[in-house]
Amino acid sequence: MSPQAATPAYRRLSVEERRSQLLDAALSLFAHRAPEDVSLDDVAEAAGVSRPLVYRYFPGGKQQLYEAALHSAAEELRGCFDEPREGPLLPRLHRALDRYLTFVDGHDAGFSALLQGGSVVETSRTTAIVDGVRRAAADHIMRHLDVTDPGPRLRMTVRMWITAVEAASLIWLDEDKQPPMEELRDWLVDQFVAVLTVTATRDPQTATVLSTLSD
Amino acid sequence: MSPQAATPAYRRLSVEERRSQLLDAALSLFAHRAPEDVSLDDVAEAAGVSRPLVYRYFPGGKQQLYEAALHSAAEELRGCFDEPREGPLLPRLHRALDRYLTFVDGHDAGFSALLQGGSVVETSRTTAIVDGVRRAAADHIMRHLDVTDPGPRLRMTVRMWITAVEAASLIWLDEDKQPPMEELRDWLVDQFVAVLTVTATRDPQTATVLSTLSD
Repeated sequence: MSPQAATPAYRRLSVEERRSQLLDAALSLFAHRAPEDVSLDDVAEAAGVSRPLVYRYFPGGKQQLYEAALHSAAEELRGCFDEPREGPLLPRLHRALDRYLTFVDGHDAGFSALLQGGSVVETSRTTAIVDGVRRAAADHIMRHLDVTDPGPRLRMTVRMWITAVEAASLIWLDEDKQPPMEELRDWLVDQFVAVLTVTATRDPQTATVLSTLSD
Repeated sequence: MSPQAATPAYRRLSVEERRSQLLDAALSLFAHRAPEDVSLDDVAEAAGVSRPLVYRYFPGGKQQLYEAALHSAAEELRGCFDEPREGPLLPRLHRALDRYLTFVDGHDAGFSALLQGGSVVETSRTTAIVDGVRRAAADHIMRHLDVTDPGPRLRMTVRMWITAVEAASLIWLDEDKQPPMEELRDWLVDQFVAVLTVTATRDPQTATVLSTLSD
Protein backbone atom coordinates (compact mmCIF):
# COMPACT_ATOMS: atom_id res chain seq x y z
CA MET A 1 0.00 0.00 0.00
CA SER A 2 1.45 3.38 -0.95
CA PRO A 3 1.26 6.20 1.61
CA GLN A 4 -1.32 7.85 -0.67
CA ALA A 5 -3.65 4.95 -0.11
CA ALA A 6 -3.82 5.73 3.59
CA THR A 7 -7.16 6.96 4.90
CA PRO A 8 -7.57 10.72 5.41
CA ALA A 9 -7.39 10.16 9.17
CA TYR A 10 -3.78 9.06 8.67
CA ARG A 11 -2.84 12.21 6.87
CA ARG A 12 -4.12 14.42 9.62
CA LEU A 13 -1.16 13.42 11.83
CA SER A 14 2.15 15.16 11.30
CA VAL A 15 5.24 13.02 10.74
CA GLU A 16 6.26 13.61 14.35
CA GLU A 17 2.81 12.76 15.68
CA ARG A 18 2.65 9.60 13.60
CA ARG A 19 6.09 8.55 14.70
CA SER A 20 5.21 9.10 18.31
CA GLN A 21 1.92 7.21 17.88
CA LEU A 22 3.82 4.22 16.49
CA LEU A 23 6.40 4.39 19.27
CA ASP A 24 3.65 4.49 21.89
CA ALA A 25 2.09 1.41 20.34
CA ALA A 26 5.46 -0.34 20.23
CA LEU A 27 6.28 0.60 23.82
CA SER A 28 2.97 -0.71 25.07
CA LEU A 29 3.67 -4.01 23.28
CA PHE A 30 7.27 -4.19 24.54
CA ALA A 31 5.83 -3.43 27.98
CA HIS A 32 4.26 -6.85 28.14
CA ARG A 33 6.28 -8.95 25.74
CA ALA A 34 9.94 -9.57 25.06
CA PRO A 35 11.16 -7.59 22.02
CA GLU A 36 11.68 -10.76 19.97
CA ASP A 37 8.01 -11.65 20.40
CA VAL A 38 6.77 -8.37 18.93
CA SER A 39 6.40 -8.16 15.15
CA LEU A 40 5.86 -5.09 12.97
CA ASP A 41 2.44 -6.59 12.22
CA ASP A 42 1.62 -6.43 15.92
CA VAL A 43 2.68 -2.78 16.06
CA ALA A 44 0.63 -1.94 12.97
CA GLU A 45 -2.39 -3.65 14.48
CA ALA A 46 -1.95 -1.97 17.88
CA ALA A 47 -1.66 1.45 16.25
CA GLY A 48 -4.53 0.73 13.82
CA VAL A 49 -2.36 1.41 10.77
CA SER A 50 -1.05 -0.64 7.86
CA ARG A 51 2.18 -2.60 8.02
CA PRO A 52 3.69 -0.62 5.08
CA LEU A 53 3.11 2.57 7.02
CA VAL A 54 5.11 1.17 9.96
CA TYR A 55 7.85 0.25 7.49
CA ARG A 56 7.78 3.71 6.01
CA TYR A 57 8.57 5.20 9.41
CA PHE A 58 10.97 2.45 10.42
CA PRO A 59 12.53 1.17 7.19
CA GLY A 60 15.15 -0.64 9.28
CA GLY A 61 12.36 -2.90 10.53
CA LYS A 62 12.08 -4.39 13.98
CA GLN A 63 15.57 -3.51 15.14
CA GLN A 64 15.11 0.16 14.25
CA LEU A 65 11.68 0.28 15.87
CA TYR A 66 13.02 -1.42 18.98
CA GLU A 67 15.86 1.04 19.26
CA ALA A 68 13.55 4.00 18.72
CA ALA A 69 11.18 2.66 21.39
CA LEU A 70 14.16 2.17 23.67
CA HIS A 71 15.26 5.78 23.10
CA SER A 72 11.75 6.94 23.86
CA ALA A 73 11.62 4.83 27.06
CA ALA A 74 15.07 6.11 27.99
CA GLU A 75 13.82 9.69 27.60
CA GLU A 76 10.88 8.91 29.85
CA LEU A 77 13.18 7.31 32.42
CA ARG A 78 15.53 10.29 32.38
CA GLY A 79 12.50 12.47 32.99
CA CYS A 80 11.79 10.54 36.21
CA PHE A 81 14.99 11.85 37.77
CA ASP A 82 14.42 15.40 36.62
CA GLU A 83 13.50 16.83 39.98
CA PRO A 84 13.79 20.55 40.84
CA ARG A 85 16.76 21.28 43.06
CA GLU A 86 14.62 22.79 45.78
CA GLY A 87 13.79 21.78 49.32
CA PRO A 88 15.33 19.00 51.42
CA LEU A 89 17.28 16.31 49.57
CA LEU A 90 15.66 13.12 50.78
CA PRO A 91 12.11 14.14 49.81
CA ARG A 92 13.48 14.93 46.33
CA LEU A 93 14.87 11.41 46.14
CA HIS A 94 11.51 10.06 47.32
CA ARG A 95 9.71 11.88 44.52
CA ALA A 96 12.19 10.75 41.84
CA LEU A 97 11.91 7.13 43.02
CA ASP A 98 8.11 7.42 43.03
CA ARG A 99 8.17 8.42 39.37
CA TYR A 100 10.74 5.76 38.52
CA LEU A 101 8.82 2.95 40.25
CA THR A 102 5.59 4.11 38.59
CA PHE A 103 7.36 3.76 35.25
CA VAL A 104 8.61 0.27 36.19
CA ASP A 105 5.11 -0.66 37.36
CA GLY A 106 3.55 0.50 34.08
CA HIS A 107 6.06 -1.14 31.75
CA ASP A 108 6.76 -4.36 33.66
CA ALA A 109 7.64 -7.03 31.08
CA GLY A 110 9.09 -4.48 28.66
CA PHE A 111 11.20 -3.00 31.44
CA SER A 112 12.58 -6.44 32.35
CA ALA A 113 13.31 -7.29 28.72
CA LEU A 114 15.01 -3.93 28.29
CA LEU A 115 17.33 -4.26 31.25
CA GLN A 116 17.98 -7.95 31.37
CA GLY A 117 19.23 -8.09 27.83
CA GLY A 118 19.76 -11.49 26.35
CA SER A 119 17.18 -10.63 23.76
CA VAL A 120 17.92 -11.55 20.16
CA VAL A 121 17.75 -7.93 19.08
CA GLU A 122 20.08 -6.68 21.77
CA THR A 123 23.21 -5.08 20.41
CA SER A 124 25.93 -2.95 21.86
CA ARG A 125 23.87 0.05 20.68
CA THR A 126 20.87 -0.81 22.84
CA THR A 127 23.21 -1.56 25.75
CA ALA A 128 24.69 1.90 25.25
CA ILE A 129 21.21 3.47 25.50
CA VAL A 130 20.52 1.74 28.80
CA ASP A 131 23.98 2.72 30.08
CA GLY A 132 23.20 6.30 29.10
CA VAL A 133 20.17 6.27 31.41
CA ARG A 134 22.31 4.91 34.26
CA ARG A 135 24.87 7.64 33.73
CA ALA A 136 22.15 10.30 33.54
CA ALA A 137 20.72 9.06 36.84
CA ALA A 138 24.18 9.25 38.45
CA ASP A 139 24.67 12.79 37.08
CA HIS A 140 21.28 13.87 38.45
CA ILE A 141 22.16 12.54 41.88
CA MET A 142 25.52 14.32 41.88
CA ARG A 143 23.84 17.56 40.90
CA HIS A 144 21.32 17.20 43.71
CA LEU A 145 24.13 16.41 46.13
CA ASP A 146 25.79 19.61 44.87
CA VAL A 147 28.95 17.73 43.93
CA THR A 148 30.67 18.92 40.78
CA ASP A 149 33.78 16.77 41.01
CA PRO A 150 32.89 13.45 42.64
CA GLY A 151 35.84 11.35 43.75
CA PRO A 152 36.08 7.63 42.93
CA ARG A 153 34.57 6.46 46.23
CA LEU A 154 31.48 8.66 46.07
CA ARG A 155 31.07 7.90 42.39
CA MET A 156 31.30 4.18 42.95
CA THR A 157 28.84 4.33 45.86
CA VAL A 158 26.23 6.17 43.79
CA ARG A 159 26.66 3.87 40.79
CA MET A 160 26.43 0.77 42.98
CA TRP A 161 23.23 2.06 44.52
CA ILE A 162 21.74 2.78 41.07
CA THR A 163 22.56 -0.77 39.98
CA ALA A 164 21.04 -2.09 43.20
CA VAL A 165 17.86 -0.06 42.54
CA GLU A 166 17.69 -1.54 39.05
CA ALA A 167 18.13 -5.05 40.44
CA ALA A 168 15.46 -4.34 43.05
CA SER A 169 13.04 -3.22 40.31
CA LEU A 170 13.55 -6.43 38.35
CA ILE A 171 13.20 -8.60 41.45
CA TRP A 172 10.13 -6.59 42.47
CA LEU A 173 8.49 -7.32 39.09
CA ASP A 174 9.51 -10.96 39.46
CA GLU A 175 7.96 -11.18 42.91
CA ASP A 176 4.53 -9.88 41.92
CA LYS A 177 5.39 -6.32 42.98
CA GLN A 178 5.96 -7.16 46.62
CA PRO A 179 6.64 -5.32 48.93
CA PRO A 180 4.22 -2.45 48.12
CA MET A 181 5.73 0.38 46.08
CA GLU A 182 5.85 2.88 48.97
CA GLU A 183 7.70 0.43 51.19
CA LEU A 184 10.17 -0.38 48.41
CA ARG A 185 10.77 3.33 47.84
CA ASP A 186 11.46 4.07 51.53
CA TRP A 187 13.68 1.00 51.77
CA LEU A 188 15.74 2.12 48.76
CA VAL A 189 16.14 5.63 50.19
CA ASP A 190 17.26 4.17 53.53
CA GLN A 191 19.77 1.96 51.72
CA PHE A 192 21.14 5.00 49.93
CA VAL A 193 21.77 6.74 53.24
CA ALA A 194 23.25 3.52 54.71
CA VAL A 195 25.78 2.95 51.91
CA LEU A 196 26.76 6.63 51.91
CA THR A 197 27.32 6.31 55.67
CA VAL A 198 29.63 3.33 55.11
CA THR A 199 31.60 5.22 52.46
CA ALA A 200 31.73 8.35 54.61
CA THR A 201 33.96 6.53 57.13
CA ARG A 202 36.54 6.14 54.33
CA ASP A 203 36.02 9.28 52.26
CA PRO A 204 35.85 12.90 53.48
CA GLN A 205 33.91 14.06 50.38
CA THR A 206 31.15 11.52 51.07
CA ALA A 207 31.16 12.54 54.76
CA THR A 208 30.49 16.15 53.72
CA VAL A 209 27.70 15.08 51.37
CA LEU A 210 26.16 12.95 54.09
CA SER A 211 26.08 15.86 56.52
CA THR A 212 23.96 17.87 54.05
CA LEU A 213 21.48 15.02 53.46
CA SER A 214 19.25 15.86 56.39
CA ASP A 215 19.22 19.60 55.55
CA MET B 1 44.78 -30.96 8.47
CA SER B 2 43.35 -34.23 9.74
CA PRO B 3 43.68 -35.04 13.46
CA GLN B 4 46.16 -37.78 12.47
CA ALA B 5 48.51 -35.11 11.14
CA ALA B 6 48.89 -33.70 14.64
CA THR B 7 52.31 -34.06 16.23
CA PRO B 8 52.79 -36.89 18.76
CA ALA B 9 52.82 -34.28 21.57
CA TYR B 10 49.17 -33.58 20.71
CA ARG B 11 48.17 -37.18 21.11
CA ARG B 12 49.62 -37.41 24.58
CA LEU B 13 46.80 -35.29 25.99
CA SER B 14 43.49 -36.95 26.76
CA VAL B 15 40.34 -35.48 25.24
CA GLU B 16 39.53 -33.84 28.57
CA GLU B 17 43.03 -32.43 28.96
CA ARG B 18 43.05 -31.10 25.43
CA ARG B 19 39.64 -29.53 25.88
CA SER B 20 40.72 -27.87 29.08
CA GLN B 21 43.96 -26.66 27.45
CA LEU B 22 41.93 -25.01 24.67
CA LEU B 23 39.51 -23.47 27.17
CA ASP B 24 42.39 -22.07 29.21
CA ALA B 25 43.83 -20.52 26.07
CA ALA B 26 40.42 -19.09 25.14
CA LEU B 27 39.83 -17.75 28.65
CA SER B 28 43.17 -16.00 28.71
CA LEU B 29 42.32 -14.37 25.37
CA PHE B 30 38.80 -13.41 26.48
CA ALA B 31 40.44 -12.07 29.63
CA HIS B 32 41.97 -9.22 27.70
CA ARG B 33 39.78 -8.87 24.63
CA ALA B 34 36.07 -8.70 23.93
CA PRO B 35 34.72 -12.06 22.67
CA GLU B 36 34.03 -10.66 19.20
CA ASP B 37 37.71 -9.76 18.84
CA VAL B 38 38.91 -13.31 19.48
CA SER B 39 39.09 -15.70 16.52
CA LEU B 40 39.56 -19.47 16.50
CA ASP B 41 42.91 -18.76 14.85
CA ASP B 42 43.93 -16.75 17.90
CA VAL B 43 42.92 -19.60 20.19
CA ALA B 44 44.83 -22.13 18.08
CA GLU B 45 47.89 -19.92 18.14
CA ALA B 46 47.67 -19.28 21.89
CA ALA B 47 47.34 -23.01 22.57
CA GLY B 48 50.04 -23.89 20.04
CA VAL B 49 47.74 -26.19 18.07
CA SER B 50 46.24 -26.21 14.61
CA ARG B 51 43.01 -24.46 13.77
CA PRO B 52 41.36 -27.74 12.61
CA LEU B 53 42.09 -29.20 16.02
CA VAL B 54 40.23 -26.31 17.69
CA TYR B 55 37.34 -26.96 15.29
CA ARG B 56 37.40 -30.66 16.11
CA TYR B 57 36.81 -29.85 19.77
CA PHE B 58 34.43 -26.98 19.12
CA PRO B 59 32.68 -27.78 15.84
CA GLY B 60 30.15 -25.05 16.64
CA GLY B 61 32.96 -22.53 16.17
CA LYS B 62 33.41 -19.32 18.08
CA GLN B 63 29.99 -19.28 19.72
CA GLN B 64 30.46 -22.79 21.11
CA LEU B 65 33.98 -22.02 22.31
CA TYR B 66 32.79 -18.80 23.92
CA GLU B 67 29.99 -20.59 25.74
CA ALA B 68 32.33 -23.35 26.89
CA ALA B 69 34.82 -20.76 28.14
CA LEU B 70 31.96 -18.97 29.87
CA HIS B 71 30.90 -22.22 31.57
CA SER B 72 34.45 -22.78 32.67
CA ALA B 73 34.73 -19.21 34.04
CA ALA B 74 31.36 -19.65 35.74
CA GLU B 75 32.65 -22.82 37.43
CA GLU B 76 35.70 -20.93 38.63
CA LEU B 77 33.53 -18.09 39.93
CA ARG B 78 31.23 -20.48 41.77
CA GLY B 79 34.33 -21.96 43.34
CA CYS B 80 35.20 -18.53 44.79
CA PHE B 81 32.13 -18.64 47.00
CA ASP B 82 32.70 -22.21 48.10
CA GLU B 83 33.84 -21.42 51.61
CA PRO B 84 33.67 -23.96 54.48
CA ARG B 85 30.84 -23.21 56.92
CA GLU B 86 33.17 -22.87 59.85
CA GLY B 87 34.21 -20.01 62.07
CA PRO B 88 32.75 -16.49 62.27
CA LEU B 89 30.61 -15.33 59.32
CA LEU B 90 32.25 -12.07 58.34
CA PRO B 91 35.76 -13.54 57.93
CA ARG B 92 34.18 -16.18 55.65
CA LEU B 93 32.72 -13.39 53.53
CA HIS B 94 36.13 -11.67 53.51
CA ARG B 95 37.77 -14.82 52.19
CA ALA B 96 35.13 -15.41 49.51
CA LEU B 97 35.40 -11.79 48.34
CA ASP B 98 39.21 -12.09 48.29
CA ARG B 99 38.96 -15.04 45.91
CA TYR B 100 36.28 -13.31 43.83
CA LEU B 101 38.25 -10.06 43.49
CA THR B 102 41.40 -12.01 42.62
CA PHE B 103 39.42 -13.66 39.82
CA VAL B 104 38.17 -10.25 38.62
CA ASP B 105 41.71 -8.88 38.82
CA GLY B 106 43.10 -11.76 36.75
CA HIS B 107 40.44 -11.74 34.06
CA ASP B 108 39.79 -8.01 33.77
CA ALA B 109 38.73 -7.34 30.17
CA GLY B 110 37.19 -10.79 29.79
CA PHE B 111 35.25 -10.31 33.02
CA SER B 112 33.86 -6.97 31.82
CA ALA B 113 32.92 -8.39 28.44
CA LEU B 114 31.27 -11.33 30.15
CA LEU B 115 29.10 -9.28 32.48
CA GLN B 116 28.39 -6.20 30.45
CA GLY B 117 26.95 -8.14 27.56
CA GLY B 118 26.31 -6.19 24.42
CA SER B 119 28.72 -8.47 22.66
CA VAL B 120 27.74 -9.81 19.25
CA VAL B 121 27.95 -13.38 20.46
CA GLU B 122 25.78 -12.78 23.50
CA THR B 123 22.62 -14.83 23.53
CA SER B 124 20.01 -15.63 26.13
CA ARG B 125 22.06 -18.80 26.78
CA THR B 126 25.14 -16.89 27.86
CA THR B 127 22.98 -14.55 29.93
CA ALA B 128 21.52 -17.63 31.63
CA ILE B 129 25.03 -18.85 32.53
CA VAL B 130 25.88 -15.52 34.17
CA ASP B 131 22.52 -15.50 35.98
CA GLY B 132 23.30 -19.00 37.23
CA VAL B 133 26.46 -17.70 38.90
CA ARG B 134 24.48 -14.89 40.56
CA ARG B 135 21.93 -17.38 41.86
CA ALA B 136 24.68 -19.70 43.08
CA ALA B 137 26.27 -16.79 44.95
CA ALA B 138 22.93 -15.95 46.59
CA ASP B 139 22.43 -19.61 47.57
CA HIS B 140 25.90 -19.76 49.10
CA ILE B 141 25.21 -16.67 51.15
CA MET B 142 21.89 -18.05 52.40
CA ARG B 143 23.58 -21.30 53.39
CA HIS B 144 26.25 -19.41 55.31
CA LEU B 145 23.57 -17.31 56.98
CA ASP B 146 21.89 -20.60 57.91
CA VAL B 147 18.65 -19.55 56.26
CA THR B 148 16.77 -22.33 54.50
CA ASP B 149 13.65 -20.40 53.62
CA PRO B 150 14.56 -16.76 52.94
CA GLY B 151 11.63 -14.35 52.80
CA PRO B 152 11.29 -11.80 49.97
CA ARG B 153 12.96 -8.94 51.89
CA LEU B 154 16.07 -10.89 52.87
CA ARG B 155 16.27 -12.43 49.40
CA MET B 156 15.99 -9.05 47.71
CA THR B 157 18.61 -7.54 50.01
CA VAL B 158 21.12 -10.29 49.24
CA ARG B 159 20.48 -10.16 45.51
CA MET B 160 20.78 -6.37 45.47
CA TRP B 161 24.10 -6.59 47.27
CA ILE B 162 25.38 -9.20 44.80
CA THR B 163 24.45 -6.92 41.90
CA ALA B 164 26.13 -4.01 43.64
CA VAL B 165 29.29 -6.11 44.11
CA GLU B 166 29.22 -6.94 40.42
CA ALA B 167 28.81 -3.27 39.53
CA ALA B 168 31.64 -2.39 41.90
CA SER B 169 33.90 -4.94 40.19
CA LEU B 170 33.23 -3.46 36.76
CA ILE B 171 33.73 0.10 38.00
CA TRP B 172 36.89 -1.00 39.79
CA LEU B 173 38.32 -2.39 36.54
CA ASP B 174 37.26 0.79 34.79
CA GLU B 175 39.00 2.95 37.37
CA ASP B 176 42.40 1.25 37.12
CA LYS B 177 41.67 -1.01 40.09
CA GLN B 178 41.29 1.81 42.58
CA PRO B 179 40.77 1.67 45.57
CA PRO B 180 43.18 -1.17 46.44
CA MET B 181 41.62 -4.64 46.53
CA GLU B 182 41.71 -4.98 50.33
CA GLU B 183 39.96 -1.66 50.83
CA LEU B 184 37.31 -2.58 48.23
CA ARG B 185 36.75 -5.92 49.97
CA ASP B 186 36.30 -4.36 53.43
CA TRP B 187 34.06 -1.68 51.97
CA LEU B 188 31.82 -4.32 50.29
CA VAL B 189 31.57 -6.31 53.52
CA ASP B 190 30.63 -3.16 55.45
CA GLN B 191 27.97 -2.38 52.84
CA PHE B 192 26.55 -5.87 53.23
CA VAL B 193 26.16 -5.35 56.97
CA ALA B 194 24.72 -1.85 56.37
CA VAL B 195 22.02 -2.96 53.93
CA LEU B 196 21.10 -5.93 56.13
CA THR B 197 20.76 -3.48 59.03
CA VAL B 198 18.36 -1.34 56.97
CA THR B 199 16.28 -4.37 56.02
CA ALA B 200 16.32 -5.67 59.62
CA THR B 201 14.23 -2.68 60.73
CA ARG B 202 11.47 -3.96 58.38
CA ASP B 203 11.95 -7.71 58.50
CA PRO B 204 12.24 -9.96 61.60
CA GLN B 205 14.02 -12.72 59.64
CA THR B 206 16.76 -10.32 58.56
CA ALA B 207 16.99 -8.99 62.13
CA THR B 208 17.68 -12.55 63.35
CA VAL B 209 20.30 -13.10 60.65
CA LEU B 210 21.96 -9.80 61.53
CA SER B 211 22.23 -10.75 65.20
CA THR B 212 24.25 -13.88 64.23
CA LEU B 213 26.63 -11.95 61.96
CA SER B 214 29.05 -10.98 64.71
CA ASP B 215 29.10 -14.51 66.22
